[in-house]
Amino acid sequence: MNDAVRQVTHAQNIRYDKTAEALYMIDQTLLPGEEKEIRTETLEEMVEAIKALRVRGAPAIGIFAAYSMYALARTIPTAGTREDFLHSLGSFGDALKAARPTAVNLSWAVDLMLETARERLELDGPALLEALYQKAVEIHEDDIAKCRAISEYGLSLLKPGDGVLTHCNAGPLATSRYGTAQGPFLLAAEKGVPVRVFADETRPLLQGARLTSYELSRAGVDVTLICDNMASMVMKNGWVQACFVGCDRIAANGDTANKIGTSGVAILAKHYGIPVYVLGPTSTIDLNCPDGDHIPIELRDPDEIKALWYEKPMALPEVKCYNPAFDVTDHSLIAGIVTEKGICRPPYSESLAALFK
Amino acid sequence: MNDAVRQVTHAQNIRYDKTAEALYMIDQTLLPGEEKEIRTETLEEMVEAIKALRVRGAPAIGIFAAYSMYALARTIPTAGTREDFLHSLGSFGDALKAARPTAVNLSWAVDLMLETARERLELDGPALLEALYQKAVEIHEDDIAKCRAISEYGLSLLKPGDGVLTHCNAGPLATSRYGTAQGPFLLAAEKGVPVRVFADETRPLLQGARLTSYELSRAGVDVTLICDNMASMVMKNGWVQACFVGCDRIAANGDTANKIGTSGVAILAKHYGIPVYVLGPTSTIDLNCPDGDHIPIELRDPDEIKALWYEKPMALPEVKCYNPAFDVTDHSLIAGIVTEKGICRPPYSESLAALFK
Repeated sequence: MNDAVRQVTHAQNIRYDKTAEALYMIDQTLLPGEEKEIRTETLEEMVEAIKALRVRGAPAIGIFAAYSMYALARTIPTAGTREDFLHSLGSFGDALKAARPTAVNLSWAVDLMLETARERLELDGPALLEALYQKAVEIHEDDIAKCRAISEYGLSLLKPGDGVLTHCNAGPLATSRYGTAQGPFLLAAEKGVPVRVFADETRPLLQGARLTSYELSRAGVDVTLICDNMASMVMKNGWVQACFVGCDRIAANGDTANKIGTSGVAILAKHYGIPVYVLGPTSTIDLNCPDGDHIPIELRDPDEIKALWYEKPMALPEVKCYNPAFDVTDHSLIAGIVTEKGICRPPYSESLAALFK
Repeated sequence: MNDAVRQVTHAQNIRYDKTAEALYMIDQTLLPGEEKEIRTETLEEMVEAIKALRVRGAPAIGIFAAYSMYALARTIPTAGTREDFLHSLGSFGDALKAARPTAVNLSWAVDLMLETARERLELDGPALLEALYQKAVEIHEDDIAKCRAISEYGLSLLKPGDGVLTHCNAGPLATSRYGTAQGPFLLAAEKGVPVRVFADETRPLLQGARLTSYELSRAGVDVTLICDNMASMVMKNGWVQACFVGCDRIAANGDTANKIGTSGVAILAKHYGIPVYVLGPTSTIDLNCPDGDHIPIELRDPDEIKALWYEKPMALPEVKCYNPAFDVTDHSLIAGIVTEKGICRPPYSESLAALFK
């Protein structure tokens, strides 16, 4: 395995131990209380891990599925024909895909692995398995490289000693190493650059408390957890010089959909004269989407606000809730969009389009 | 008892039943899961209710203490002298005050009751007790009258069908009837004026979820609970035409300390062109405090963010938290300050001073 994959300076969510031929992952459902690595061996265990969100985050699911395909390929009896092999592997892939049908990265990774098997079908058994393993490593390394590039570009925006406010989680647990919005902080820790991070807890799912503050703390980053409604105070105190946020979808004009609360952070930052940077891979940019008004916003279960995590419900059953999962930050509030190909600046209708030329 | 006190169109936190000679209060620690009225009869029960925050909110504690003093006066043996009576009542008062030494309204109400006893000491036993009872009712009614006036002025700022965003809790549970910031909504419900309220849950203590959405829902107000970080979306959707917030202290220039998150709401509202109104009694205005920089901000326990209410902690023990209880909203973000004496408009250095002339 490549050094980039093997090296662990902070929590590593997914790893394949080639010596023991074993696939391990951190069970994210137990974080931050319990940091437990689990080994998945059978198709049933892999499907369950995806369904139960033990592994979550689009890139992370893709990487896990790639290693799962390799591990499952090893279980196919060698007595059969090459076509039998392809058929069995396809069945495993279908079962993995069905574990989370809307996860684009899951299908993408499974299909890449199947394509590799088809292309290398002339190889003998051990060589074919090795080709599949190398493909999984390639998918893993490709994500690390993209996250690393985003992190480098992001870190270039900071001075030593800067404070940065971040929202939600787009760290290594959701990707491979580094992550996107939180990647520059982990890279700063590796390089010994002092950075002070303020992490919004990010209600209602608390990704900032459960995952971001966990990842950054474990990596030795100076992180302070706050409630979402404390961001204004932190900015007023002069403690942050930039805001780094992730993205779920970026429209052609730079309008950015991200976790609920991001637009509020951006408006506060504008008020206090603090730049806001959006960090994400170019695969998040959707040039076919003209602006934020064309991005549909998922509404989620009221019980995420009223009851989730609590010992007992915190509001009456008859109280209505409005629970949007995302909001759209207007492009006018964004100082830069940081991708693996570089930093785009306004006007985004030009700088984003230029990335794809 | 006066009609104003007896009439209950929504949850009434404290009531004295003169027929049964019994003091009742809603145990706020059980809300919203359990709506239980408890009867307090002994000094020990009263002290415990204050200490355990079964009754909370400065005006509410004052009212509870006034009725408690009357109820305790009834237990003093009639065989003693008038001086014995005063001495015993003074001891009860000291014990009540000691239950929450920093609560100014508690001392204030106890002292008013003692002053009444001294002034009316020439009366016979039953008449003296009646004078004490009437004083307690007066304290209660005075708070209702102030809240009612604030609510009327606040409601005058709204049109039927308006949406209003509110933060934290300054409703009847914290005062008497109506409350301050939430008073206009309850008055609107009484008058049949349609108003749509969005209540921030108000992390970390969740007063918006546990108390505001409870009170408004019980009173038949159209209320929707949101997480604090959803306020930007609600404003962007065009759903609110005003923000109503309470206050803990208003400086001479109009800078206002209120529950953490209020300044963020005000900055978002400015961005979206929505007016912000601060509602509170004139007793909250401190002309000796020149501006917000002179208001000390209480920092609270990190575990309120990491562990309170939850089944298990949501962040690692070593993760730092910043947990300010209040923030200061700049006077430039406030469209009006609504008191029982009327609505002050900028410049506040003039309009607030004029209230006290």
